[in-house]
Amino acid sequence: MPAIFPSLEALRAACLDLPDGDDAAVAAVAARQAQLTKPPGSLGRLEELVAWLARWQGRTQGHAQDSAQGHAQGDAQGHAQGHAQGDAQGHTQGHAQGHAPRLDRVDILVFAGNHGVTERGVSAYPAAVTAQMVANFAAGGAAINQLARTVGATLRVIPLALDRPTTDFTREVAMDEENFLSAVAAGYDAVAPDCELVCLGEMGIGNTTAAAAIAAALFGGGAARWAGRGTGIDDAGLARKRAAVEAGLTRHGALRSEPLALAAALGGRELAAILGAALAARHRRIPVLLDGFVSTAAVAPLTRLRDDALDHTRAAHVSAEAAHRALLDELGLAPLLDLGMRLGEASGAAVAVAVLRAALACHTGMATFAEAGVAGKAT
Amino acid sequence: MPAIFPSLEALRAACLDLPDGDDAAVAAVAARQAQLTKPPGSLGRLEELVAWLARWQGRTQGHAQDSAQGHAQGDAQGHAQGHAQGDAQGHTQGHAQGHAPRLDRVDILVFAGNHGVTERGVSAYPAAVTAQMVANFAAGGAAINQLARTVGATLRVIPLALDRPTTDFTREVAMDEENFLSAVAAGYDAVAPDCELVCLGEMGIGNTTAAAAIAAALFGGGAARWAGRGTGIDDAGLARKRAAVEAGLTRHGALRSEPLALAAALGGRELAAILGAALAARHRRIPVLLDGFVSTAAVAPLTRLRDDALDHTRAAHVSAEAAHRALLDELGLAPLLDLGMRLGEASGAAVAVAVLRAALACHTGMATFAEAGVAGKAT
Repeated sequence: MPAIFPSLEALRAACLDLPDGDDAAVAAVAARQAQLTKPPGSLGRLEELVAWLARWQGRTQGHAQDSAQGHAQGDAQGHAQGHAQGDAQGHTQGHAQGHAPRLDRVDILVFAGNHGVTERGVSAYPAAVTAQMVANFAAGGAAINQLARTVGATLRVIPLALDRPTTDFTREVAMDEENFLSAVAAGYDAVAPDCELVCLGEMGIGNTTAAAAIAAALFGGGAARWAGRGTGIDDAGLARKRAAVEAGLTRHGALRSEPLALAAALGGRELAAILGAALAARHRRIPVLLDGFVSTAAVAPLTRLRDDALDHTRAAHVSAEAAHRALLDELGLAPLLDLGMRLGEASGAAVAVAVLRAALACHTGMATFAEAGVAGKAT
Repeated sequence: MPAIFPSLEALRAACLDLPDGDDAAVAAVAARQAQLTKPPGSLGRLEELVAWLARWQGRTQGHAQDSAQGHAQGDAQGHAQGHAQGDAQGHTQGHAQGHAPRLDRVDILVFAGNHGVTERGVSAYPAAVTAQMVANFAAGGAAINQLARTVGATLRVIPLALDRPTTDFTREVAMDEENFLSAVAAGYDAVAPDCELVCLGEMGIGNTTAAAAIAAALFGGGAARWAGRGTGIDDAGLARKRAAVEAGLTRHGALRSEPLALAAALGGRELAAILGAALAARHRRIPVLLDGFVSTAAVAPLTRLRDDALDHTRAAHVSAEAAHRALLDELGLAPLLDLGMRLGEASGAAVAVAVLRAALACHTGMATFAEAGVAGKAT
């Protein structure tokens, strides 16, 4: 049994025990933004993003103490250490308060898993591609390798028992409790305490089928609403995919009132790991960029345990997989980008890191009206 | 008289004489994209953007010859030279053809001008802010300074006779022919022949009023459709702004069949310069990112001379100024970003450069299916 979450009940307790963001840090950001040489609000979401980073990084006096208290076993040490170190290093040009958000360490975590439901012919690609793409990640040849380098992020790929696919969820639960908790723990442990932003992505042939099943169970509408073409399956394959989702709903839909059990029954190891990583980031007050449909579906069960469970996350983009927009709407998440991407592997989240860097650069580097001798509004 | 365009008629002739893009370069990009380790089309607009860069940079054998022929006086030399140099330097990893698009030199051009129509009380800020912001650009304190640095672009600010505002267009034409052509030439000359991408932006208190007047004259709907709050004017100011636009339409609307004369009558020096820069980029086959409402309105008259005049441009973003979306719709431009920005000074274009870099990094750096040993679609 994994030590960090010895039971579903322990995991559920950890999902209910979440820290809030730091209102004082948000206020400090707002006060500075009002002085910068631009019309108020004219940087739009770039301003909101800096406030969000500040809210969760919580770079104000006493934050390390605040957040170390009350949070979870094995976490407090890493948390206090991570933030104290961040504060001690001080901060960049132009920000007198010395506690602006930072993006010096951005981690992109890509979890990979294999799915028994691929036996149903639900994907355009053979299941072997999951491991082949993990090798491609290791060799530096995938899209996410290029994107991570371009946006100055560290890519970490975590394959999860690729030689042991989950069980076909049309027949029994995809993962028993032990396998599920082990995958959740792998995700939880992958979040470095001193990280300042985490991007969560995935690779797994068949995993849009698992994501569709979870979304359908949580939000209704059946397979027709949630199962799309994924990597590009043809009409016959799409029919098989929808049939698999419906079979999964028939077999496991009654678990919708137990969202963690539902995630075990219909999900996959990489989805469970993403759930665990999002939870770890919240406990450590690290902001999270979610990638596409699968990543979003992976964390959706958390919102059934606490309405505010995803407040520390932003949807990096909305993918071309139509179900993703529907899911973001259900979750109240407004995507940063809409570029028609549908690759997964955290690719959309990585592009959004560039937007965050732009936002932060403006916030920390711009002159104030007073510094620049620029007149304010003629009122 | 400026030598490059001695008359409106000469400028009009240059606006009609435009090179096409390079279809062979687009085909080469498509052939490579089909081999990269991702489902076909799964990078969405990132793939389209690389094809667009290739189409206008035209990095195929013989391109310099192709494009040097037939184009405009004073332009052919720079053009051939710029591309020959680019080709000679060769290209990066993973792209066997050796003629992928490049973004080694990205210029952000911010043109600044002052507007007589500010006498009508159309802006939330005093006209003196234009020069103050130009000083802020020079000192490195504005948003665009931070953004240019973040995305690896060179910022060039070109103030245009700030001590001589254009004439209030509610009374007479904003610029006579000489002043207009001089501003167009300043923009034309600001585009470096060896540049691989140009971002066009502006600074000018009152210039959303000029932009609204141009858009209204070209596309109809009156001031109510096109005049918004700009930098944040109050209700009384918005009423004055709309009245000014209506007065301008009454006085100069008959020029709508002469788009260049219209741009002189209702525009401003920075808008004229943006028009000139967009034209120069087309003659030199350099792709262009347009910024917000003002930049887009500045180039809109070109489309009345040739339908395809903006094929070498992309709308970097859609701003929070509602008229911008309406204008993009009229022009058939699909914005890359929608981040609620409304600052101008090329800020939206600069953020979009990061998206282009991401797109190009994937295209040039990714492994092919064959290189990576990844299986293709199970067909």
